[in-house]
Amino acid sequence: MTTIGIADTTFARTNMAKHAISELKRNASIRIKRYTVPGIKDLPVACKKLIEEHSCNIVMAFGMPGADPKDKICAHEASQGIITAQLMTNTHIIEVFVHEDEAPSDREFTALAENRAREHALNVTKLLFKPDQLEKEAGTGQRQGYQDAGPARP
Amino acid sequence: MTTIGIADTTFARTNMAKHAISELKRNASIRIKRYTVPGIKDLPVACKKLIEEHSCNIVMAFGMPGADPKDKICAHEASQGIITAQLMTNTHIIEVFVHEDEAPSDREFTALAENRAREHALNVTKLLFKPDQLEKEAGTGQRQGYQDAGPARP
Amino acid sequence: MTTIGIADTTFARTNMAKHAISELKRNASIRIKRYTVPGIKDLPVACKKLIEEHSCNIVMAFGMPGADPKDKICAHEASQGIITAQLMTNTHIIEVFVHEDEAPSDREFTALAENRAREHALNVTKLLFKPDQLEKEAGTGQRQGYQDAGPARP
Amino acid sequence: MTTIGIADTTFARTNMAKHAISELKRNASIRIKRYTVPGIKDLPVACKKLIEEHSCNIVMAFGMPGADPKDKICAHEASQGIITAQLMTNTHIIEVFVHEDEAPSDREFTALAENRAREHALNVTKLLFKPDQLEKEAGTGQRQGYQDAGPARP
Amino acid sequence: MTTIGIADTTFARTNMAKHAISELKRNASIRIKRYTVPGIKDLPVACKKLIEEHSCNIVMAFGMPGADPKDKICAHEASQGIITAQLMTNTHIIEVFVHEDEAPSDREFTALAENRAREHALNVTKLLFKPDQLEKEAGTGQRQGYQDAGPARP
Repeated sequence: MTTIGIADTTFARTNMAKHAISELKRNASIRIKRYTVPGIKDLPVACKKLIEEHSCNIVMAFGMPGADPKDKICAHEASQGIITAQLMTNTHIIEVFVHEDEAPSDREFTALAENRAREHALNVTKLLFKPDQLEKEAGTGQRQGYQDAGPARP
Repeated sequence: MTTIGIADTTFARTNMAKHAISELKRNASIRIKRYTVPGIKDLPVACKKLIEEHSCNIVMAFGMPGADPKDKICAHEASQGIITAQLMTNTHIIEVFVHEDEAPSDREFTALAENRAREHALNVTKLLFKPDQLEKEAGTGQRQGYQDAGPARP
Repeated sequence: MTTIGIADTTFARTNMAKHAISELKRNASIRIKRYTVPGIKDLPVACKKLIEEHSCNIVMAFGMPGADPKDKICAHEASQGIITAQLMTNTHIIEVFVHEDEAPSDREFTALAENRAREHALNVTKLLFKPDQLEKEAGTGQRQGYQDAGPARP
Repeated sequence: MTTIGIADTTFARTNMAKHAISELKRNASIRIKRYTVPGIKDLPVACKKLIEEHSCNIVMAFGMPGADPKDKICAHEASQGIITAQLMTNTHIIEVFVHEDEAPSDREFTALAENRAREHALNVTKLLFKPDQLEKEAGTGQRQGYQDAGPARP
Repeated sequence: MTTIGIADTTFARTNMAKHAISELKRNASIRIKRYTVPGIKDLPVACKKLIEEHSCNIVMAFGMPGADPKDKICAHEASQGIITAQLMTNTHIIEVFVHEDEAPSDREFTALAENRAREHALNVTKLLFKPDQLEKEAGTGQRQGYQDAGPARP
C-alpha cells in the first residue's frame, strides 16, 4: 500500500497536516506516516527519514515561516534542504509553506493554510495516481490556497 | 533512439512545453517523455527521475516564476537544484524559465514564452547532435526569446 | 545508552551548552559528548564528526551570530551546512542560534540564550523519547526562548 | 599529454576561449578539449563532463553575466555549481567570468575580457606545471584583467 | 606526524599564511603542506586535495575578499564550498578571511590580517592537541584579530 509521509512543525500556528490527511484519505486508499519536528529547518532530514526509514512513497512538508527577515532566511534554507533531500532519494517532497505575512488576519490565515494544505494533498494524489491529470493542467496557472491565476491570454 | 525529457508545471501560465516539443520533433527524430509537476521547486527531482528512471538523454525544465520576491527565491532554489541534479547525473538539463515580470502584457508574455521555448529546443538539438554549431556561436551574444545581443564590437 | 552530541563555539558570549546539558540530564538518562570549535562555520563538520565518529544519536549545535551583515551571512552558511550534515547522516541536528541583536541588553540576552537552550533540550528529548508529544503540539505556535505564539484563531 | 578543458557559452559577447587557448598553447605542450553550451548555468555540468568523460586535467569556464539582477543570480548559481563540480572531482575549474557592467564601452569590455582570459590561462599553466611560482606570488594582490592591486604596505 | 594544510591565494594582499606557519611551528611539531591558488573560489577544491591527496589532518584557508558586492558574493560562495569540503572529508578547514573593508588603512589591515592568522593558528593547535582548552573557552566571546568580545554579563 502507498505510504504518504507527513512532516510538520510545532512552530506553525495551524495544524495544516490534519487537513491534508483528511483530504488524502478521502481521495485514495493510502497509509499515513506522520513526523512532527520543532521547526522548519528540521523538516529536510525528517522528510528524508520518512522516505528512507519509513518507506514513504512521497512526502508532504508543512511549514509556517514568520514575517521577520531572519525567518525568511530559515525558510530558504529549509527549501534548499528539501530539494536536496529529493535529489538524494529520487522522491517527491511537496513543500507546503504558508508565510505569516500572507494574510492580514488570523481568520484569513487559517483559511489560506487549510486550503493550501488540501489543494496540495490533491496534487500529491495526482502525482501518485493521476499524472495524466497534471499534464492536462500544465501551463494553466494553478495556485494553491489562492484563486488560480489561470492561463495567460495570447 | 534519443529520449528528451520535458518537465513542466501547472503553476506556469502558458504551455511552453508544447511549443518546445513541436520544435524538437520538427528538427530531429527523437522520443519525448513528459513529466508535469505542481510548481517550480518540484522540477529538480522530476528532471532527475526523467534521467535516471526514464533514461532521458537530456531534459528541458520549464518554469514561470511570479513577480513577487518570494517567487524569485523559489526560482533561485529551483535553479540550484537543477544544477545539482545535472552534476549528480552528468546530464544536461536546459532550464527555460520566463519571469512573470519580463513582459508588460499577457500577449507579449505568451509570445516571449513561446519563442524562448522554441529557441532553447534548438539549443537542445545542437547539444545532442550538432555541438560544432554551438562552438561556432561561442561568444556571439545569443539570446532566447529576445533579440540576440550580438558580439561586442572591439 | 543514547548519546547526545553538543557542539558549540568559543565565539559565543554565553555558555548555552551548559544549560542544555543540565536540562538534558534532568530529563533522561543519556550520555553527553561535547565538542567546542572556534566559530559558527566550524559547527557543521563538528556535528557530522559527533554523529559519525562519536556515535551520537542526535546533536545540538549552539551558535551566536553577531549583528553585522557579515555575521548574518556566516550564520546562513552554517545553517545550510548543518542541514546538509543531517541529510548526509539521516540524523537530527537541532540548531540553537541566538542572534546578538535579539535582545537589547546583556542581561536579557543571557536569559534568552539560557531559555532557548533549555527549551530546545526538551525538544531533543521529545524527538528521542516522546515523538507523540511533538505530534500533539503540531501547529500550536511553539517558540523557544520567547513566549509561545500559540495557535492562530480561526 | 595534459588535457585542458575549455567550457564557454553562446550567450557571452566575446570569444574569450579563443584568447585563452592561444595563451595556453604558447606556454605549454597541451591538448585542448572545447565544449560550448548556451548559457552560464549550463557550465557546471559541462565542466564535470570535460573532467569525467573527456579526461581533462583542469578546466577553464568562461561566462559573461549580464548587468540585470536576474543575471547576477544566474552567475551566483553557476559559481556554486562550479565549486561543487570541483569538489566532486578533486579537479580545478578556473572560473573566468566578466560581468557586462565591468566596463563602460564595448571596446574596453573586449580588452578586459581578453586580458582576463589570457591571465587566467597563465594561472592554469602555473597550477599544472609551476605551483612554486604561485606560492611566490601568494599575498601579492594579483588581479586578472585589471592592474594588480599589489601587496598592502604595512 | 601531523600534517597541516595551508591554502592561500595570489589575490590576497598580505601573506597571512607565512604568519600562521610561523605560529604553528612555534607551538607544535607538525609538517606543513602549502597550496597557493589564484583566488578565493579556488580554495575549496585546494583544501579538499590537501586533505585527500596530501593526507593533511586539518587545513587553514586564507582569503581576502574585496570590498565590492561582487567580491562579497565570491566570499560567500567560497565559504559554502569550504563547508561542503569539510562535510565530504570529516576534516576541519579553518577559514581565515579578512575583508578589505575591515580596516581603514593598509597598516591597520596588515596588522589585523597577521593577528587573525596567528590566533587562528592557535585555534588549529587546540583543535588538534588541546580540545579541552577550547571547551574551557566555550561561550567566552573569543575573537580573532580584534579584541575579544568577552562573555555577556548576566
